[in-house]
Amino acid sequence: MGIPEGSLELHSKWKHGPRNLITDVPGVKVGQVTIQHGEVNTGVTAILPHERNLFQEKVMAGTAIINGFGKSAGLVQVEELGTIESPIILTNTLSVGTALTAAVKHMMAQNPDIGVETGTVNCLVTECNDGRLNDIRGLHVTEEHVLQALKSAAEDFEEGAVGGGTGMVCLGLKGGIGSSSRQLEADGKTYTTGALVMTNFGAAGNLVIGGRHIDTRKCNEECGRNFKDSGSIIIIIGTDAPLNERQLKRLAKRAMISLGRVGSYSGNGSGDIAVAFTTANNQPHYSDKNVWDMKMFYDENIDWVFESTVEAVEEAIISSLYHAKTTVGVRGNKYMGLLEFMEKYEKQ
Amino acid sequence: MGIPEGSLELHSKWKHGPRNLITDVPGVKVGQVTIQHGEVNTGVTAILPHERNLFQEKVMAGTAIINGFGKSAGLVQVEELGTIESPIILTNTLSVGTALTAAVKHMMAQNPDIGVETGTVNCLVTECNDGRLNDIRGLHVTEEHVLQALKSAAEDFEEGAVGGGTGMVCLGLKGGIGSSSRQLEADGKTYTTGALVMTNFGAAGNLVIGGRHIDTRKCNEECGRNFKDSGSIIIIIGTDAPLNERQLKRLAKRAMISLGRVGSYSGNGSGDIAVAFTTANNQPHYSDKNVWDMKMFYDENIDWVFESTVEAVEEAIISSLYHAKTTVGVRGNKYMGLLEFMEKYEKQ
Amino acid sequence: MGIPEGSLELHSKWKHGPRNLITDVPGVKVGQVTIQHGEVNTGVTAILPHERNLFQEKVMAGTAIINGFGKSAGLVQVEELGTIESPIILTNTLSVGTALTAAVKHMMAQNPDIGVETGTVNCLVTECNDGRLNDIRGLHVTEEHVLQALKSAAEDFEEGAVGGGTGMVCLGLKGGIGSSSRQLEADGKTYTTGALVMTNFGAAGNLVIGGRHIDTRKCNEECGRNFKDSGSIIIIIGTDAPLNERQLKRLAKRAMISLGRVGSYSGNGSGDIAVAFTTANNQPHYSDKNVWDMKMFYDENIDWVFESTVEAVEEAIISSLYHAKTTVGVRGNKYMGLLEFMEKYEKQ
Amino acid sequence: MGIPEGSLELHSKWKHGPRNLITDVPGVKVGQVTIQHGEVNTGVTAILPHERNLFQEKVMAGTAIINGFGKSAGLVQVEELGTIESPIILTNTLSVGTALTAAVKHMMAQNPDIGVETGTVNCLVTECNDGRLNDIRGLHVTEEHVLQALKSAAEDFEEGAVGGGTGMVCLGLKGGIGSSSRQLEADGKTYTTGALVMTNFGAAGNLVIGGRHIDTRKCNEECGRNFKDSGSIIIIIGTDAPLNERQLKRLAKRAMISLGRVGSYSGNGSGDIAVAFTTANNQPHYSDKNVWDMKMFYDENIDWVFESTVEAVEEAIISSLYHAKTTVGVRGNKYMGLLEFMEKYEKQ
Repeated sequence: MGIPEGSLELHSKWKHGPRNLITDVPGVKVGQVTIQHGEVNTGVTAILPHERNLFQEKVMAGTAIINGFGKSAGLVQVEELGTIESPIILTNTLSVGTALTAAVKHMMAQNPDIGVETGTVNCLVTECNDGRLNDIRGLHVTEEHVLQALKSAAEDFEEGAVGGGTGMVCLGLKGGIGSSSRQLEADGKTYTTGALVMTNFGAAGNLVIGGRHIDTRKCNEECGRNFKDSGSIIIIIGTDAPLNERQLKRLAKRAMISLGRVGSYSGNGSGDIAVAFTTANNQPHYSDKNVWDMKMFYDENIDWVFESTVEAVEEAIISSLYHAKTTVGVRGNKYMGLLEFMEKYEKQ
Repeated sequence: MGIPEGSLELHSKWKHGPRNLITDVPGVKVGQVTIQHGEVNTGVTAILPHERNLFQEKVMAGTAIINGFGKSAGLVQVEELGTIESPIILTNTLSVGTALTAAVKHMMAQNPDIGVETGTVNCLVTECNDGRLNDIRGLHVTEEHVLQALKSAAEDFEEGAVGGGTGMVCLGLKGGIGSSSRQLEADGKTYTTGALVMTNFGAAGNLVIGGRHIDTRKCNEECGRNFKDSGSIIIIIGTDAPLNERQLKRLAKRAMISLGRVGSYSGNGSGDIAVAFTTANNQPHYSDKNVWDMKMFYDENIDWVFESTVEAVEEAIISSLYHAKTTVGVRGNKYMGLLEFMEKYEKQ
Repeated sequence: MGIPEGSLELHSKWKHGPRNLITDVPGVKVGQVTIQHGEVNTGVTAILPHERNLFQEKVMAGTAIINGFGKSAGLVQVEELGTIESPIILTNTLSVGTALTAAVKHMMAQNPDIGVETGTVNCLVTECNDGRLNDIRGLHVTEEHVLQALKSAAEDFEEGAVGGGTGMVCLGLKGGIGSSSRQLEADGKTYTTGALVMTNFGAAGNLVIGGRHIDTRKCNEECGRNFKDSGSIIIIIGTDAPLNERQLKRLAKRAMISLGRVGSYSGNGSGDIAVAFTTANNQPHYSDKNVWDMKMFYDENIDWVFESTVEAVEEAIISSLYHAKTTVGVRGNKYMGLLEFMEKYEKQ
Repeated sequence: MGIPEGSLELHSKWKHGPRNLITDVPGVKVGQVTIQHGEVNTGVTAILPHERNLFQEKVMAGTAIINGFGKSAGLVQVEELGTIESPIILTNTLSVGTALTAAVKHMMAQNPDIGVETGTVNCLVTECNDGRLNDIRGLHVTEEHVLQALKSAAEDFEEGAVGGGTGMVCLGLKGGIGSSSRQLEADGKTYTTGALVMTNFGAAGNLVIGGRHIDTRKCNEECGRNFKDSGSIIIIIGTDAPLNERQLKRLAKRAMISLGRVGSYSGNGSGDIAVAFTTANNQPHYSDKNVWDMKMFYDENIDWVFESTVEAVEEAIISSLYHAKTTVGVRGNKYMGLLEFMEKYEKQ
C-alpha cells in the first residue's frame, strides 16, 4: 500500500495505482514467508512476473549492478538474453544456495523437459545480509519455505518486517519489504510501473524523507550500537509498458537516483542490485518462428517512465521503513521501526 | 569557491579545502576561455590533472557512463587502460572535433615521439549541448581557444557562466561550471577530493537544494518557454587519495547519487558522464621496469571517500547555479541565474 | 569481392553474396578517398548504412569493445541508445577530430533542425594508427577528404591499401580495407550479413590463413624491422536480419573469435572495436507514436547468424591482406602485400 | 599434464611448466570428485588459489562474460571488488545451489566471524550443463561431494572425464576437465600462468586442433545424434604475475581468442565464462592500514602474458578432449573420446 497519504510527505508528480504496490502491474503476484522465533528473523519474498509458466513464457528484463558487493544468483543470463524465466526470490545472503535449489526443483516440477529435451533453467535469487537481527549462520531458510512463498503468491501482500525483509536493517532503523506503484496515461492506455524493494542499506544518520534529514542516531542509546554501513538493497521494478531489454536496463539504473534521494551514498559494502522487467514483450521458450514482433517505447518520450519509476522506488524504500515494526533479534540487537522512532524522537 | 557559507544550506559532513575548488587537490589546475558576443555563448574549460607532461606521466582514472546520451571522445581507452594521458577538455557538443584536434596538436608539440617512436595519444574531450543559449551550429570554438584555455590554467578560476559552461542551462535556470572540494584525515595525512562539473541537465521544476524543492517554472513567463530536459552533465572528480582504477570507477559512479540529491532523474536525453582520477598512482609512458608499485585504498575503509565525493559533486552542481548570471542568448532565449531567481521568486 | 575462390583456402560453411562485400546488404554503400604522395599514406573510408537521411532514420546498432586501446568517437551513445544516426567514418587516429568536424558539418547541412529545434548529432568516427607508413603527425586528412568519401559512396568499392586502410599494417604485412558477406535463407527470405574491416593489428609471425600458420617474419630483412604489435582493427558488421540492439552487441562480440582464427591474441596496444548494425529496425528521429513495432530474431535460432558473421569477418581480414599491395612509406618503412610475400617466400 | 608432446600438434611459442597444469602456479591446488553410476555422470572440481584461509587472505581477480548464457554464482562481487574469497567450484548447472550451500558451510566452518563480527562470504560456483550424459534432473551432487573435492585438493589431478567434467560434451566428442601452463622469464624471475577448463561447448564438426579441422560428425552414426550446440565452457586462469584486477579482466577476455582457435563461434546457448586470478596481490580481510602496496605489470610489456595465456587455454581445451574417455550416459547417449575417434576415423 506504500505510504498512506498524509503520513510522510514525499514529493510526488505521478499518481499511484489502486493498491500502490508492484502488484498493480496486471498479472504480477507476490508471496512471502516470515520465519521468526528466538534469534531467527528471516524469510522469503517471491515475485511472480506472471502466474503462468515463466520458463515457457519468459518476460523481458534488464539489470543494473549499482554496487556489486552482493551474492545474487542468475543475473548474468538476464543480462545476456534480456529475459527472466523463473520467479524472483529475495532472501538472506547465506540462504541463496538453498533458495536456488528450491527454485530449480519448482521449475523442474513445472517443466519435465528441462534437462532432457531442452537445456537448464536460470533461477533468479537475490539477497541481503540480515545477520544484524537474524542468526544467519543457522541457515534457517529451507526449500519448503521457498515453495511456500511461491504458493502463497497473491496480489495483496504485507510490507515491513516480513518475508525476505524480516531481519533487514536500513539507515539505522528497521528495514524490510516496501512497495509502491505509479500510473501513466498514453495513447489512451494506462501504463503501470511498480517497485518492490528489500531494504538493508544505508548509514545511521543519513535518512532523508521528502528532502528532510532525520537523524536516526538519536535512538542509538536505546537501540545499542549500529554496525557500520554494510547492507544492501534489492530493487525489483515491474511494468506493463512495452520497453525492450536495453530500456529496462536504463530503467533499473535510475534506481540509484532514488537511493540518492533517501540518503544513501551506495556504501562499499552494499550490494545494490536493480532488476526491471516488463510483461509486455513475453517470449516463448519454443517457437516455430525465426522472427518475432516486439514493442518498444520511443526513447524520446520515455522520461515519464524514468521519473515515475524513480518516485516509485523512493516511496517503496520509505514504505519499507514505515511499515516495519521495532524488532529485537540475535545477540539482543534492536532496530526501531520508523513510526516508533518518529513518535519518540521527532515529535516536537 | 563553491557556495559561500551561509548562502544556501546544504547538508555537509566533511569540511572543504581552502579554495573549495577541485584545485585544492595539489597539482590540479583549471583554465578557461569564455566566448560571448551576440548570439554566441560558449567556451572551453580545461582541467590539468598535473602541470607536467601528461603523456609521459599518466594519471590513473576510472569513468562512469551514468547516461550515455553524449558525444565525449576518449572514454574508451580510459576504461581499458585506467589512465588519462592528456588534459581534460569541456566544451559544446558540436565543437568536440575541433577541441580534439587542438588537444592532439598540443600533445604532439609537447611530445615529438608521438606517432614516430611511439604510438598515438588519447585526448579526453567532453561536452554538453549549449544550443539553447549559443549559436551552436556556428562552431564558434576554434583550436586557438582550446590552446588559450590550456595556457591559462591556474589554481584559481571562475565558476558560473564561464568557459565550457557559458551557454549551459540546468534545471530551468542558468547552469555552467561549478566546483567544490572535501578533505579527510587518515594515517596522519590529509587527502583532498575535488569535483568540477559542467551543468546542463534537469527539468525545470525539479531543482532541490539541501532537500528543498524549488520550482523554477515560476520564471517561465519572464524567461520564455523551457525546452524539454535534453541536457547533460560532465562530472570530473580529482583526488590525491591512492585509489586504483577499479576504485576510481566506483567513485565516478557515485556521482549519480549526487544527481538524485539535486533533483535529476537522469533524463533520456542527458549525457551524464563522470570521470575520476587520482594524482597518487602516476605511470610513466616509458619504463625499464616490468613491475610497478602502486598504492591502493583498503576498500573496507573507502566509504568516507565515497560519501565526501557525493557531497562535493552535489555542492559543485549547486555552486554552478549559484555563480551563474542571468543570460540571454540565441533566438532571444533567456535563462535566469539562481540568485536573481531566488531574489525575485522565492523571497517571502 | 573478398578472396577470389581458389586463391586462399578458408573453411567456409555459408555462401557469400553476389559481390562478397558488405554492400551485399541492400542499401549499404561505401565511399573512399586514398591520400598518397611522398611520405603520406592515409585516407578515409565511409560506410553508409543506408543512403537516406541517417539522422532522420536511425539504424539499430550494438558495439563491442574487444580491446579498448583506441580513440574512436561516438561509441558511448550507440551503446546507450542502440542506434547509429550518421555515416561511419574510418580514418587514422590523429585525424579523428577533423573527421568528426566534417561529419558534423555534413549532418548539419542535411538537417537544419540539428542544434535548433532538436538536439545535436552523434557522429561515429573510428580509427587505426597508420604511423608506420604514414606521416601521421602531418594531419593530412582534411574535412574535404571526408566529404568526398561520403559523396563517392557506392555499392562497388576497392579493397586493400585504399581509403582509411592506405597506411595500415597487419600481422607483419601490408593491411588495409577488406570486406566479405554471407547469405542465409530463412522463412523463404534471404538474409545478408556483411563485414568491412580496417586491419592494422597483429604481431609479425602470427598470421594464420585457414588454419595454416604463415611466418611473415621471413621478409623482415627485405622489409626492415617490424614494430611491436601496437595496431588495431575496426570491424563493421552490417545485416538486414531483424536483430535488436542486444543481439547486435552479441554479434559484434563474435568478431573476437575471428581475430583468434587469423592469429591475433588482441595485443595490449590494439584498439579492437566492433560495431554491428541492422537495416531492419530503423527508427525515425521524430515520431507521433509512443510505441513502435520492432522485429527480433529468436535467440534460439541465432547461431547461424553468429557463425556466418565469424566467417565473414575472418574472410574480410584475409581479404584486406590479399588485396593490399606492397607499400613503402614514411621513414622508408616497407610492408609487403600478402600476394607478393606468398610468391617470394611461400612458394615450394 | 596437458597434451603429451608429439601427440597432437599445437603451435606453441612458450614453454609449459613442470606439470603442465594450473597447479604449476605455486600454491594452487585442485581437488575433484567423480560421480559415476548408471545414468549418473557428474561431479565436482574445486580450485584453491592458495591453501590458506581464502576469506582472510583474498586473491585479486577479474572476470569476463564471453557469453552469458550461464548460471554461475558469485561473479558480480568479483567484478565489483576485484577479489575472490573462496575456492572456485565447477559442477553441473542444476547443482549450483547445493554447491553454493556446501561452500558457504565450508567457509563458515573456517571463519566463525562470518555473519557475526563481519559480513557474509561470496562463494564462486561455476557450471556447465551435463544433461546429455548425466541424469541432471536427479541432482546427484551432494554437499558432501563438494567438501570431499575441497579436502582432496592437491597439486596433481586428473584431466578428462573426471570431476565437474565427468558428463561434459565438447565439439561433438567427450569433453571434460583440461589444464595447461606456461612459464615466462622476466627481471630474473619465472612467472607461471595456468589454465583449467571445463569443456562442454561447440558444435559437432567444428573442432580445430593446431589449425586442422577435424570433422567429428563422422562418428554420428555410432554415437547417435548430437544435440545442437547448447553447451558452455568455464575457463579458470591462475597466475603469479603481479597483475591488478583490470589487467586480470583483460587476461580473462583473451580466452575468447582461444575459443576461436579450437573451432567455437561462442554459440547462443553457451555459457562461456572466464575468471582470472593472481596470487601476487593478496588482500587481508581485516587490516589496520588504509593504504596497501600493490604490484602491477607494465601494460606496455603485458603482451607475453596475454599470448601465453591464449596458448595455455587453447591447450587446456584440447587436453580435456585428449584425456576424456568415451562415455555412455543417460538415455544411452554416447560421446566418443578424442583418441578413440582419431584412431577410428582419422587414421589414414
